[in-house]
Amino acid sequence: MERHDVETLLRRLKAGEISVGETVEALRSLPFEELGYATLDTHRTLRRGYPEAVYCGGKTDEQVAAILERLSTNHRTVLATRARPSTAGAVRARVVGAMPNPRKGLVAVVTAGTSDGPVAEEAAVTAEAMGHRVDRLYDVGVAGVHRLLDKRKRLERASVIVVVAGMEGALPSVVSGLVDKPVIAVPTSVGYGASFDGLAALLAMMNACSPGVAVVNIDNGFGAGYMAAMLDH
Amino acid sequence: MERHDVETLLRRLKAGEISVGETVEALRSLPFEELGYATLDTHRTLRRGYPEAVYCGGKTDEQVAAILERLSTNHRTVLATRARPSTAGAVRARVVGAMPNPRKGLVAVVTAGTSDGPVAEEAAVTAEAMGHRVDRLYDVGVAGVHRLLDKRKRLERASVIVVVAGMEGALPSVVSGLVDKPVIAVPTSVGYGASFDGLAALLAMMNACSPGVAVVNIDNGFGAGYMAAMLDH
Amino acid sequence: MERHDVETLLRRLKAGEISVGETVEALRSLPFEELGYATLDTHRTLRRGYPEAVYCGGKTDEQVAAILERLSTNHRTVLATRARPSTAGAVRARVVGAMPNPRKGLVAVVTAGTSDGPVAEEAAVTAEAMGHRVDRLYDVGVAGVHRLLDKRKRLERASVIVVVAGMEGALPSVVSGLVDKPVIAVPTSVGYGASFDGLAALLAMMNACSPGVAVVNIDNGFGAGYMAAMLDH
Amino acid sequence: MERHDVETLLRRLKAGEISVGETVEALRSLPFEELGYATLDTHRTLRRGYPEAVYCGGKTDEQVAAILERLSTNHRTVLATRARPSTAGAVRARVVGAMPNPRKGLVAVVTAGTSDGPVAEEAAVTAEAMGHRVDRLYDVGVAGVHRLLDKRKRLERASVIVVVAGMEGALPSVVSGLVDKPVIAVPTSVGYGASFDGLAALLAMMNACSPGVAVVNIDNGFGAGYMAAMLDH
Amino acid sequence: MERHDVETLLRRLKAGEISVGETVEALRSLPFEELGYATLDTHRTLRRGYPEAVYCGGKTDEQVAAILERLSTNHRTVLATRARPSTAGAVRARVVGAMPNPRKGLVAVVTAGTSDGPVAEEAAVTAEAMGHRVDRLYDVGVAGVHRLLDKRKRLERASVIVVVAGMEGALPSVVSGLVDKPVIAVPTSVGYGASFDGLAALLAMMNACSPGVAVVNIDNGFGAGYMAAMLDH
Amino acid sequence: MERHDVETLLRRLKAGEISVGETVEALRSLPFEELGYATLDTHRTLRRGYPEAVYCGGKTDEQVAAILERLSTNHRTVLATRARPSTAGAVRARVVGAMPNPRKGLVAVVTAGTSDGPVAEEAAVTAEAMGHRVDRLYDVGVAGVHRLLDKRKRLERASVIVVVAGMEGALPSVVSGLVDKPVIAVPTSVGYGASFDGLAALLAMMNACSPGVAVVNIDNGFGAGYMAAMLDH
Amino acid sequence: MERHDVETLLRRLKAGEISVGETVEALRSLPFEELGYATLDTHRTLRRGYPEAVYCGGKTDEQVAAILERLSTNHRTVLATRARPSTAGAVRARVVGAMPNPRKGLVAVVTAGTSDGPVAEEAAVTAEAMGHRVDRLYDVGVAGVHRLLDKRKRLERASVIVVVAGMEGALPSVVSGLVDKPVIAVPTSVGYGASFDGLAALLAMMNACSPGVAVVNIDNGFGAGYMAAMLDH
Amino acid sequence: MERHDVETLLRRLKAGEISVGETVEALRSLPFEELGYATLDTHRTLRRGYPEAVYCGGKTDEQVAAILERLSTNHRTVLATRARPSTAGAVRARVVGAMPNPRKGLVAVVTAGTSDGPVAEEAAVTAEAMGHRVDRLYDVGVAGVHRLLDKRKRLERASVIVVVAGMEGALPSVVSGLVDKPVIAVPTSVGYGASFDGLAALLAMMNACSPGVAVVNIDNGFGAGYMAAMLDH
Repeated sequence: MERHDVETLLRRLKAGEISVGETVEALRSLPFEELGYATLDTHRTLRRGYPEAVYCGGKTDEQVAAILERLSTNHRTVLATRARPSTAGAVRARVVGAMPNPRKGLVAVVTAGTSDGPVAEEAAVTAEAMGHRVDRLYDVGVAGVHRLLDKRKRLERASVIVVVAGMEGALPSVVSGLVDKPVIAVPTSVGYGASFDGLAALLAMMNACSPGVAVVNIDNGFGAGYMAAMLDH
Repeated sequence: MERHDVETLLRRLKAGEISVGETVEALRSLPFEELGYATLDTHRTLRRGYPEAVYCGGKTDEQVAAILERLSTNHRTVLATRARPSTAGAVRARVVGAMPNPRKGLVAVVTAGTSDGPVAEEAAVTAEAMGHRVDRLYDVGVAGVHRLLDKRKRLERASVIVVVAGMEGALPSVVSGLVDKPVIAVPTSVGYGASFDGLAALLAMMNACSPGVAVVNIDNGFGAGYMAAMLDH
Repeated sequence: MERHDVETLLRRLKAGEISVGETVEALRSLPFEELGYATLDTHRTLRRGYPEAVYCGGKTDEQVAAILERLSTNHRTVLATRARPSTAGAVRARVVGAMPNPRKGLVAVVTAGTSDGPVAEEAAVTAEAMGHRVDRLYDVGVAGVHRLLDKRKRLERASVIVVVAGMEGALPSVVSGLVDKPVIAVPTSVGYGASFDGLAALLAMMNACSPGVAVVNIDNGFGAGYMAAMLDH
Repeated sequence: MERHDVETLLRRLKAGEISVGETVEALRSLPFEELGYATLDTHRTLRRGYPEAVYCGGKTDEQVAAILERLSTNHRTVLATRARPSTAGAVRARVVGAMPNPRKGLVAVVTAGTSDGPVAEEAAVTAEAMGHRVDRLYDVGVAGVHRLLDKRKRLERASVIVVVAGMEGALPSVVSGLVDKPVIAVPTSVGYGASFDGLAALLAMMNACSPGVAVVNIDNGFGAGYMAAMLDH
Repeated sequence: MERHDVETLLRRLKAGEISVGETVEALRSLPFEELGYATLDTHRTLRRGYPEAVYCGGKTDEQVAAILERLSTNHRTVLATRARPSTAGAVRARVVGAMPNPRKGLVAVVTAGTSDGPVAEEAAVTAEAMGHRVDRLYDVGVAGVHRLLDKRKRLERASVIVVVAGMEGALPSVVSGLVDKPVIAVPTSVGYGASFDGLAALLAMMNACSPGVAVVNIDNGFGAGYMAAMLDH
Repeated sequence: MERHDVETLLRRLKAGEISVGETVEALRSLPFEELGYATLDTHRTLRRGYPEAVYCGGKTDEQVAAILERLSTNHRTVLATRARPSTAGAVRARVVGAMPNPRKGLVAVVTAGTSDGPVAEEAAVTAEAMGHRVDRLYDVGVAGVHRLLDKRKRLERASVIVVVAGMEGALPSVVSGLVDKPVIAVPTSVGYGASFDGLAALLAMMNACSPGVAVVNIDNGFGAGYMAAMLDH
Repeated sequence: MERHDVETLLRRLKAGEISVGETVEALRSLPFEELGYATLDTHRTLRRGYPEAVYCGGKTDEQVAAILERLSTNHRTVLATRARPSTAGAVRARVVGAMPNPRKGLVAVVTAGTSDGPVAEEAAVTAEAMGHRVDRLYDVGVAGVHRLLDKRKRLERASVIVVVAGMEGALPSVVSGLVDKPVIAVPTSVGYGASFDGLAALLAMMNACSPGVAVVNIDNGFGAGYMAAMLDH
Repeated sequence: MERHDVETLLRRLKAGEISVGETVEALRSLPFEELGYATLDTHRTLRRGYPEAVYCGGKTDEQVAAILERLSTNHRTVLATRARPSTAGAVRARVVGAMPNPRKGLVAVVTAGTSDGPVAEEAAVTAEAMGHRVDRLYDVGVAGVHRLLDKRKRLERASVIVVVAGMEGALPSVVSGLVDKPVIAVPTSVGYGASFDGLAALLAMMNACSPGVAVVNIDNGFGAGYMAAMLDH
């Protein structure tokens, strides 16, 4: 039920076509959630300009393409996460979007090693899609802490820092102890054996001894970039 | 080695008392970390005004009291986490501090149930100690989602939302889907059986289907309050 | 905003005191959740007559007593789960309630061993509080499957069967294979070593090879009794 | 030992060929399980009309086809779960069955996201195969709780609700809090990282803070549909 | 239905008071499990002479005492496992039993360390209660494998070997590789840290690289002694 | 160093060619383990006639073939476990062996479902290779406990019972409660979701409430067959 | 059988009192492991001077005291780990030992926080008991990495570094990346929530991204000190 | 900033081109970490001669080749771990290196079984690349402990022992109890079922009852070889 329908209802009341009681009942039976839906949707899409994201896991290429096409009609930017290469192919022919001009704050994206790169890029691109500038500081893990110290100035310039690390997941603690910026930690599944596909890094990050660290899911670059962009609005 | 020592060194070079090579060696052997230490310390304490926190677990009452006394000489606010009642007694007689006047943004602290209260209070007091106003919305868990919908206006007024929940830990997802604010999720050990002392809530929160959620350790109200206060600077 | 308020609003529209546009805005700003709250509350309390339950873990005796007192004003039956003995004392002096007369179906509550008794009683009392008759069949675990076979007639008379078992948690599978009744399985923390406080039984029950078994949390007799009572309405 | 054999025995007793004591011994050594087997089999197949289900994991296509063919001689409907595509091919040529006309109650099948669809369909088809009408409410996860509120009327019309969700598995709690219907929760392996192939959702559902929720195995749509159909007999 | 009842039935048939068909029906409706129960009970108690065991966990002292008293009327030996000291006190005044004379084979009970002693004694006493001689070889863990080699002769004399070990649980593999005897391995909760209350030892024993090892539950000396006594009948 | 060498040494002492001190030193440096090795090897191979087993995981086909060829020179029967099909091909051309005539006791091998068949066959063939007769009772899981009751006579004829089950792993408890025979339980990885590749069955079996059950590794049919054959020597 | 006994035997052979055959038999029946035991014992005690250690968990005070008294007759230093206070009391009256003079290399013992102190002291005292000097560097965790950088010179002076840390367990990686010394990492149970009693730190340390780190059990200060002392012989 | 730059700065001071204050500022603003980086790099590469290692997981063949080529300009030996075969191909054409002549101590590398060979070779080659001699003792697992005893002399000759084992991971305890050498334990993923990809061996090794054992990650032969080479410098 759109605003137009409510207005029609009220006009009929005013015109004496229906009674107050009937109008109350009509309003009552009106699925208020529909209003809620519209409100939320407007709120989310128009006012914030946050991109919509589609999780592609467990969906066929066709499903993803259809969803993206529909979303692209009223969203400027739509992100597809966990897409297979074939999905990307199915989508590319139909959906077109441009990255917004950066107009907000600076997000630093830091990785422990080169292998953490793809997850970090997911975070960086998400933050850029949400209108932020991103400073990438890759391969500065704790095995050579001097590499990180070297970058302290750049870290301090950022409003929020996304730290991406696998293996022992120690980097967020060190970064957070170094500069007083909120750190979004992303454990990655990089590692082997007792890393248990990122569990070791996840637990380490949950236990970061330095306050100012919060954690997202393993390999969830999208979530970290999104969170960082929200924080630095 | 203080600045004064470096100046003395350079004056001796300029005066020809030592060679360039000798000066380089002296500078090289200079424990740069000492400088770094001072820098960091100043940065952290003076410029930010963030409170220092002391983790009391595994420390004797005497150790905690001594640490707090020392820290209180140059910190306006010092927080003690995981303190036993006896620790509190040992401390109270010596350390005194006043909460700062709220001068920053608004942090909403939300709980799923009454049992989550102590952890939520830890978060709220930490945020207040860091100069924020706190809006407490307690006992609005997902078993009665209408209680939460009822509070949406208040949630939207906050800059950051701390959501505290045990059991199935579903509340952060719902809150995050409801209002476009960053959510710091705190799993609690409230529950029994397969809650495994908060593990169920922790995993649920890591997997929040709505972006804009990051997680801190189980029962870590302090960490959540600190993170929220950092985000809303 | 009550119905009365809405009627007043509409009367003012009809009387020409406010325009259609103003009325739409007033309705729009109306906190629909309040309506939702009332609806749900009525629905839950009055129509169903389901008892309200209060989880006492992590709450002080005073908190529990206050909550129970408030709830008892408009609920015929209120259950307190995970109550400490001291809580029971604090409550007894204030809250009084009578068990409803059984007027609904028959719930069978089955245990593997004597040690599972307290959890089973929690289930049985909950079902009785919700108006059901309960047939207790205790200590018929799979170590002597003949004890169970002996009870098949009684099992078949029930509409729903609650099966409570610790250790290897095998009883729900066997019961479900024996009679074509839905089985609510309750793992208990009875056992030691690799029972891991009920985890072994929980996993076994999740993997019941016989269809028609669903599982509630470890030691959650209340939840099983509630579910059984709902199913057999 | 068939009924015929017992009759022969008794006739010999009546004819004085054997004594009462000998007859008692012969009856005693009689494998009573044989009787039991027949009883159970009849009970299960003929009286209930529940479909038989075959778990195809770890069986060759030939084994599955042979089992299905045998079962189809005296079951109206036979379900094959966890079938590989090749299994389906091997079976189709031989086994034919028609879905029964819906003559029982209404089961609502709800999913959190599109990716949960295949598991939900397994539940829906199972319930239909057991003679129920099914109302499908897909993609109404907690990230947009308004989508769910919108469907409350339809949820209330059902006798039992199957809720299928991966990731944080929060949907069953919310649904159960919304309408007073028993909820069969199905965790799915949808998700990544710390979802640990459905473990996160499973634990969350076990800890649902709203009573009236019971859980089946991860991705076990069949089990949920079967349970729902049993409950709503 | 006792034997007497069956005899009465058959006598009525013989006397022509009832027909063969009526007798078949009466026998058919006879709860065969009752017969089964009696059969099993006799079998278990009289023929084998195995002791009955009562798991005391989760039972009150009164419950245990009552169960033991009842069992002691028709069992020569009754074992109570996981008894609290208070339980032992409650029982001692009422139940009396003598250990049987050893008349069966030899069971070796081996421990890795002195701390494993209580569990080993539980195994040894159980085997003795079931009529076996027991050879105790304690404190011969793998940290000094020569201590074990020294005992090879004694190990070879036994029919079955119970090996009790905590920490890394390596002893069963070594014992099994040394002598060609079946090994019942008992992990104990002796250890700390990553022993996780016996889980490390349990997993190690499950993975014993030498065939001829089977494992019972953590600290389950009773189960190991019982199994050993069964094997060496 | 063989006995012959020791005698030569002592003769040289007696002949005065070497001193007592030199003889002590020579004996001391004598690698006693060599003696031990020979003893053990003879013991294991010749006296027992147990087959040697080769674990093929992580070995190339060539490695396995070479090991088998070498072992087959002095072992009558050699078993290869976890062999890939290609390994089997590489081996078949070279190693030939005949199964021994059954001359020992009877081992019952029981499975819960058809899918457990391959593991059960591994157990059965191992026991046969060690000279035992095997009675196979397949597909008698607890979902239809009457199928098992039907086979009690056959179970009682065996000396040892190997029970193979996946999913909830309940069958060993039921079998052990039914007949007083030692049960070797084999959890299998049959199942899905919360079976966690056999962990659920493993834990259930470790917690079997009936004494007389010991457990081997997941899918370890070989180990169970070997253990059973050892027990029934 | 001591060396003296063997010499007597050989002298009797030389003197013609016994034959070569009899001597071989006497030597053969001689439990060679006894020799091995003596060898090992001498080796371990006399040549190395390593202290013997007694694990007190699960032993009565009397058992510990008796073991220590016996060991102290031929060991200069005996360590008791995991001793209860009462154990210490029982022991002190009887066993006396002096710490050896430091005559070996330098072991650095580093802790992340004050709470890790007791475990670190266990490591330090063990290393001292084995003749090493120890440099203690406490409370230099990664939350303030400058504190660690400040100590690099002292770290470089050590031969081996023991790093003790709880929570996220990141310190060993950082230390190992800083100085090229072998690091023995000790996870501690310091922390809460998702530290899972040291599991998080243990996993992190196992995954240290810097080579040159090996890990001992949670809270195992003794093991780390022992290992460090062995490495720096 | 290289040493050359600092010298230029100081010469300008000496020449009076800049003041002492300006020089202090220039030195102060100098990113000291840059110095640190150079220092560490020199230290690590030139003085130690330790090889650099590149973790290839998650990197493209091109990335690995580029990194190796760059590193090979100033490292004598570069190791690539976790390389895919295709990576090896991409690298071989460009990077050439010779193994150093062994000039340091002796490292023993011991395996439990043939399947542990690849991990052991990774350890052995790493130690050789770092200038050590390696003694390989393969296939001496605890199922036949005599095989190990047989090798004690060779074990005692080594300075450090790397022990590689899967399944129950018992070998390090036994080796460590046998000879007083530090043991670096490497759990491998060899095994199946409840070995959980090496977790069982990892836990067992963490709980080694013999002191002098430290553990590296599952299958981490490189780390063990590196650690061993560091220890025996």
